[in-house]
Amino acid sequence: MELISGKIISEIKRIEIKEKIFKIKQMTGKVPGLATILVGKNVASQMYIKSKIRACETAGIESFHYNLDEDSSEKEVINLIKNLNNDAKIDGILLQLPLPENKNVRECIGAISPLKDVDGLHPFNVGSLSLSKNWSEIIEKNILVSCTPLGIIHLLHKSNIKIEGKTVVVIGRSNLVGKPLSMLLLASDATVVVAHSRTENLREICKRADILVVAVGKPNFINKDFIKNGATVIDVGINRTIEGLCGDVDFDSVKSMDIKVTPVPGGVGPMTISMLLENSLKAFKNRKN
Amino acid sequence: MELISGKIISEIKRIEIKEKIFKIKQMTGKVPGLATILVGKNVASQMYIKSKIRACETAGIESFHYNLDEDSSEKEVINLIKNLNNDAKIDGILLQLPLPENKNVRECIGAISPLKDVDGLHPFNVGSLSLSKNWSEIIEKNILVSCTPLGIIHLLHKSNIKIEGKTVVVIGRSNLVGKPLSMLLLASDATVVVAHSRTENLREICKRADILVVAVGKPNFINKDFIKNGATVIDVGINRTIEGLCGDVDFDSVKSMDIKVTPVPGGVGPMTISMLLENSLKAFKNRKN
Repeated sequence: MELISGKIISEIKRIEIKEKIFKIKQMTGKVPGLATILVGKNVASQMYIKSKIRACETAGIESFHYNLDEDSSEKEVINLIKNLNNDAKIDGILLQLPLPENKNVRECIGAISPLKDVDGLHPFNVGSLSLSKNWSEIIEKNILVSCTPLGIIHLLHKSNIKIEGKTVVVIGRSNLVGKPLSMLLLASDATVVVAHSRTENLREICKRADILVVAVGKPNFINKDFIKNGATVIDVGINRTIEGLCGDVDFDSVKSMDIKVTPVPGGVGPMTISMLLENSLKAFKNRKN
Repeated sequence: MELISGKIISEIKRIEIKEKIFKIKQMTGKVPGLATILVGKNVASQMYIKSKIRACETAGIESFHYNLDEDSSEKEVINLIKNLNNDAKIDGILLQLPLPENKNVRECIGAISPLKDVDGLHPFNVGSLSLSKNWSEIIEKNILVSCTPLGIIHLLHKSNIKIEGKTVVVIGRSNLVGKPLSMLLLASDATVVVAHSRTENLREICKRADILVVAVGKPNFINKDFIKNGATVIDVGINRTIEGLCGDVDFDSVKSMDIKVTPVPGGVGPMTISMLLENSLKAFKNRKN
């Protein structure tokens, strides 16, 4: 088993972004500004948002944090977003999910200006990704794409894992990971298989994957019986157990196989944050054009 | 081999739509209005647009046709679209593709109001489809979806072919068919495989399909070696040969198999037009809400 270190690859990416922002600041006196919105006091969300803010500040992105009460109305959330849409200092707006109940996520995300949607979840950006015919188009048009799938593609590129023509099986069809990832993979010329809770013969399907992406959210969901030798396994799961953080792959079961795997923690997680920085920089550039 | 008659299924759909429009007219005095735009004189496009206009008129949809010169500028096309966006009589706008060269399709489609985009090609509608979690959400929200993939799902439903949990292989990843169809199939709980020109081992992949959708545009591209017994084959190809119209499936080769197949002509083609009528009705309803 060979580990793919998301930690190292994301660190390099963050240094690149930091340098770019430093140059922009020297030339224009400006830096990208990112607004983060947390509604309520969810402990995991507070942790995530803290690491995002810290990463922004390290990269030279100015961050503006807004904490709304658990019981703020949907209208209050949307009003804040509308103010930020019109705020010249703000290039990107991140609404931390999940929202407390009784607030419609789709309505709130839909209120974010597509130009400032650094999470790539606005229907306009989701559609623009889907309509892109290849990877260069996504890059050239600076399309804002959901951070986790973008990070996965970046991991594969930087690890020299060929995507073109390969069979990539994605387990999970969420709006945050599975669906946008399948569009990125198609644009990268992979044969894409999307499997999920209703899939019959999951094991057999996974066994054929050259690249297997697991985004299920269940510890030890995938073991050696699901993986062919020579495959690459991307573990998107982040599960909190009494023994600590773990992914969806049963690490003990696969460790003697001839495969490449992303660990949890230290795999996809840090890539997601690096891509948030990248998207903030993209949003800054798009707005200046 | 059993034929799935798109002709009959689409005819039933058109009668249903006609009845709905008749009732709406009785109650409100209004009917949906569809604007069709043809740029240039492409013979196949002229034929398509004629059948669309005829189908509209039969169903009771008022149609308004605009024929622009081959050498109209992109700006002229967009100006016409903007006028139609603001025209209260017009509920749907259909821009016949392909456009003559030197006009950017994406810019022109992007100018259509998402509310009037009866071809379901505007990024906002493509994204809304992708974000839908299941088939009921697509129906309840009246999302405007590309007509051919919508027609394919309708054909499968009306032929009592189970989609849930089944492996559906789609050959072709176009913005008109492959990509939106893959989103519709995921929302219908299929395991979705998208294959294309870069796919390795295509035959082996197709052989595993419970439902095989072929949208390639090459006569006789698929023969019996690509199909397992018991499968359903949806042939989206429309190829003009010296022997007449044919699909992508080698009909002679598969005719002794125990499979269900859509013929060409008389399969997916008429469904596409029925879905255009359905989308025009949807757009009418969305605008009145």
